[in-house]
Amino acid sequence: MIGISIGDANGVGPEILLRAYAEGLVPGDFIAVGDLSALRKYDEILGSNTPLNVLGDPSGFRPGQLNVYDAGALSAEDVTPGRIDSKVGAAALHYIRECADRSLAGEFEAMVTLPVNKEAIRLTKSGFSGHTGYIADLAETTNYTMMLVSDRLIVTHVSTHVSLREALDRVKKGRIIDVIELTDEAIKKLRPRRRIAVAGLNPHAGEGGAFGREEIEEIAPAVAEARQEGFDAYGPVPPDTVFHQAITGEYDAVVCMYHDQGHIPLKLLGFESGVNVTLGLPFVRTSVDHGTAYDIAGKGIASLTSFRNACNLALELK
Amino acid sequence: MIGISIGDANGVGPEILLRAYAEGLVPGDFIAVGDLSALRKYDEILGSNTPLNVLGDPSGFRPGQLNVYDAGALSAEDVTPGRIDSKVGAAALHYIRECADRSLAGEFEAMVTLPVNKEAIRLTKSGFSGHTGYIADLAETTNYTMMLVSDRLIVTHVSTHVSLREALDRVKKGRIIDVIELTDEAIKKLRPRRRIAVAGLNPHAGEGGAFGREEIEEIAPAVAEARQEGFDAYGPVPPDTVFHQAITGEYDAVVCMYHDQGHIPLKLLGFESGVNVTLGLPFVRTSVDHGTAYDIAGKGIASLTSFRNACNLALELK
Repeated sequence: MIGISIGDANGVGPEILLRAYAEGLVPGDFIAVGDLSALRKYDEILGSNTPLNVLGDPSGFRPGQLNVYDAGALSAEDVTPGRIDSKVGAAALHYIRECADRSLAGEFEAMVTLPVNKEAIRLTKSGFSGHTGYIADLAETTNYTMMLVSDRLIVTHVSTHVSLREALDRVKKGRIIDVIELTDEAIKKLRPRRRIAVAGLNPHAGEGGAFGREEIEEIAPAVAEARQEGFDAYGPVPPDTVFHQAITGEYDAVVCMYHDQGHIPLKLLGFESGVNVTLGLPFVRTSVDHGTAYDIAGKGIASLTSFRNACNLALELK
Repeated sequence: MIGISIGDANGVGPEILLRAYAEGLVPGDFIAVGDLSALRKYDEILGSNTPLNVLGDPSGFRPGQLNVYDAGALSAEDVTPGRIDSKVGAAALHYIRECADRSLAGEFEAMVTLPVNKEAIRLTKSGFSGHTGYIADLAETTNYTMMLVSDRLIVTHVSTHVSLREALDRVKKGRIIDVIELTDEAIKKLRPRRRIAVAGLNPHAGEGGAFGREEIEEIAPAVAEARQEGFDAYGPVPPDTVFHQAITGEYDAVVCMYHDQGHIPLKLLGFESGVNVTLGLPFVRTSVDHGTAYDIAGKGIASLTSFRNACNLALELK
């Protein structure tokens, strides 16, 4: 069973779920976690007449319907497509928590998340830095990383939602080895080989220390130790050539030193078709690679590609 | 007249020039600056029988031949394809200096450079950080930037060959405005419109200060001031979406905050077909976007694409 949190009820999450369900794009058995009122409201807007089944526990699951654990946090009046709202933000957090709890308890083998709005959540929970960190906190793990997967490229990250200045401080040998291990484990089910490139941090991977010493002091020793442990790791590879090498078949995944080093190439190759996977949790979690898109919420035009890919990847990885 | 420095004589530069000349890919009038002995040696290796004309001053130019200012720095025995050599490195610097001097004096309207090898040059000149900085020093300018041009994307850089840590310190309002101005001036001849996106530095362009404050303190004020001065500038734009927006026609160029922010997307879209242009010099300078490729030097197989594009772009920009 897969859990799907519907995300911010004023964003495109609920309608993406309804439309993907109607088009048969959600494979396998799944239960949505969110507010029934929100799903009903978008169902009316879209005119999709989705058969919704509210259940209290797993035994209430009915095949052929869209099964929902109703959070009961929002009324129909609370839902206004495109509005940043603290109550809706708080409800989105509630769905994530319930979905993660049921995953930790083993009811869900994987969870797929639809987008939340950080601004809305920060109105109710200050300092919220992102979906991934929040779920990692719920799972009580600090050894996790964000993997992005597209048709042509797989990237993982030493750090993500921190300033670039802080990201530099997080380029440490131990952390890099952890991310190599998480990456290796994750791509077992996705790729026939597991050749992992580790990107440098500085231009030309530091050019022998001329442009920074992190490659010499942290990254090269991490790659050496990972290789000793049996991982098929390479690097530090110059950041401006490693992605070309990966898409032409030289590597199966790239460990990136900071958020944009991985996000820039991935989003350039597959804009809004990528899937975000959290590695290091006790359960599989995949997520769409786009935001709440408030400007088009309720219009029924948001792309279903990333959500479809996220559901398929959850099935592959679970 | 365009000057072409042949680059490191043990790399692919000389043979690229000879092959491109033979295939008629070098448009307009040009004079090569380098060692005749090196060109003769590769001409023998390739068996291309190139008609070489050595001239002492511009009046000696002969159409229908490959005209050369002979540096006289190397003998045939000094040239060994694929070897890192200090004498060859010193000669490469000599070609650049002569080419830049003739450009500064107005004899050349533009200079095109073939690749040098930094390691070879550092054997003779310690602290050499790159071709571009060296030419800027010769032209006595500090207000310059590296532009990369491919079919689909144009990027410029606030900094290039420095560590990422130093690059952070260089993200300053005044410098960003300078680069916007240089970018605007350069793309006049290349694009019908001049909509310039200014990328953020941090993930999600800092997300309102949550992930770094450079966007608030430096980048946004720079964009505001540039707009007041009449430039069609936008930003800070999140780094992981700005390049997709640029290639889909929303922007004509992207001002990048550090080397890899611009180099990663450009090299991913057009590996080895891009052209490197130095903006801010009193003359036009374009360069191939690849290195000396010692592993294939002398084999006659190096791609001619970037050099052909560099020559064409020099003609367009001069």
